[in-house]
Amino acid sequence: MAIILASASPRRKAILEMLGTKDLKVMPAKGEEIVPPDAGPAETVESLSRAKALEVAKKCSQSDVIIAADTIVWFGDRLLGKPSDEVEAVNMLRELSGNCHEVYTGITVIKGESVNSEHEVSKVFFRKLTDEEIKGYISTGEPMDKAGAYGVQGIGALFIERIEGDFFNVMGLPVCRLGKMLKKQGVKLL
Amino acid sequence: MAIILASASPRRKAILEMLGTKDLKVMPAKGEEIVPPDAGPAETVESLSRAKALEVAKKCSQSDVIIAADTIVWFGDRLLGKPSDEVEAVNMLRELSGNCHEVYTGITVIKGESVNSEHEVSKVFFRKLTDEEIKGYISTGEPMDKAGAYGVQGIGALFIERIEGDFFNVMGLPVCRLGKMLKKQGVKLL
Repeated sequence: MAIILASASPRRKAILEMLGTKDLKVMPAKGEEIVPPDAGPAETVESLSRAKALEVAKKCSQSDVIIAADTIVWFGDRLLGKPSDEVEAVNMLRELSGNCHEVYTGITVIKGESVNSEHEVSKVFFRKLTDEEIKGYISTGEPMDKAGAYGVQGIGALFIERIEGDFFNVMGLPVCRLGKMLKKQGVKLL
Repeated sequence: MAIILASASPRRKAILEMLGTKDLKVMPAKGEEIVPPDAGPAETVESLSRAKALEVAKKCSQSDVIIAADTIVWFGDRLLGKPSDEVEAVNMLRELSGNCHEVYTGITVIKGESVNSEHEVSKVFFRKLTDEEIKGYISTGEPMDKAGAYGVQGIGALFIERIEGDFFNVMGLPVCRLGKMLKKQGVKLL
């Protein structure tokens, strides 16, 4: 039995390694991003993680355990993706400044015929940012390839007054929930 | 001007490097652990961090910025230190199981004549653990050198349902607060 991570994210791989996961293989899904229209954040991430897991499961053995995840940043009533340019990054950071947003991760675990999708949500509270700080942050290059225009495990940590929820969920893999899901499939990390 | 970390903790060094801190030097304090009798957790960590910072400041130039920190795990009305043996580790983990505890970090920043001590507190919520999980965790060796008998950035993450507060505070250095304290001393990380 191998544990297959259906994601190219180096952060997710690092988290699984941190947990001492043995026989870990990485097989990134292409991830056709088709979401039901009008889907809420929870349904969106579960649906996307399920699509990734099912795609990779086709190439794996019945005894393998496939883990896929999808993470989004949700502010008010809409999704914040990766900024397309620096102006958009400034606007996103101005919106997050002094406010709370949510990070949703959907996670799907497949073993044989069993397909289980769940999600986790964490609240992230930004302190008030000055325009100087936002400009300085953008000049580091960190925000440009990140959903919501910040990295929680990077210089962006300076902006985060507190979180409520699973920290690793904000990084892209809700560890506590994943442990429970794997246990249901007979995979004990401890 | 150099930034001096008065701590031997590799995690604190890694956090400062994550923030892009330039001209960072590590000069661990011996840290004479003298705390006022009957001190509460906040007073304890501020006092210990201040002692470490003052000790190292003596060896530094007036233009250097010295950062020291001290972190404790507080459960109910008492401090949980590092377990002295496996039996104590089992007992600590049984106590934390299904409960909330607090992690306090005191932080002192010195520049020239200015000595500023503050603290940050984060709540950590453990899920219910089985005795089998506790035994399995102890057999990994991870808990034995850690206050409260768990590591937040390790296999212990499997136990943490959620936190409320600064995650990096639980790792030993409250990033958001440190950024504000450095700014007061004219050190801008952004």
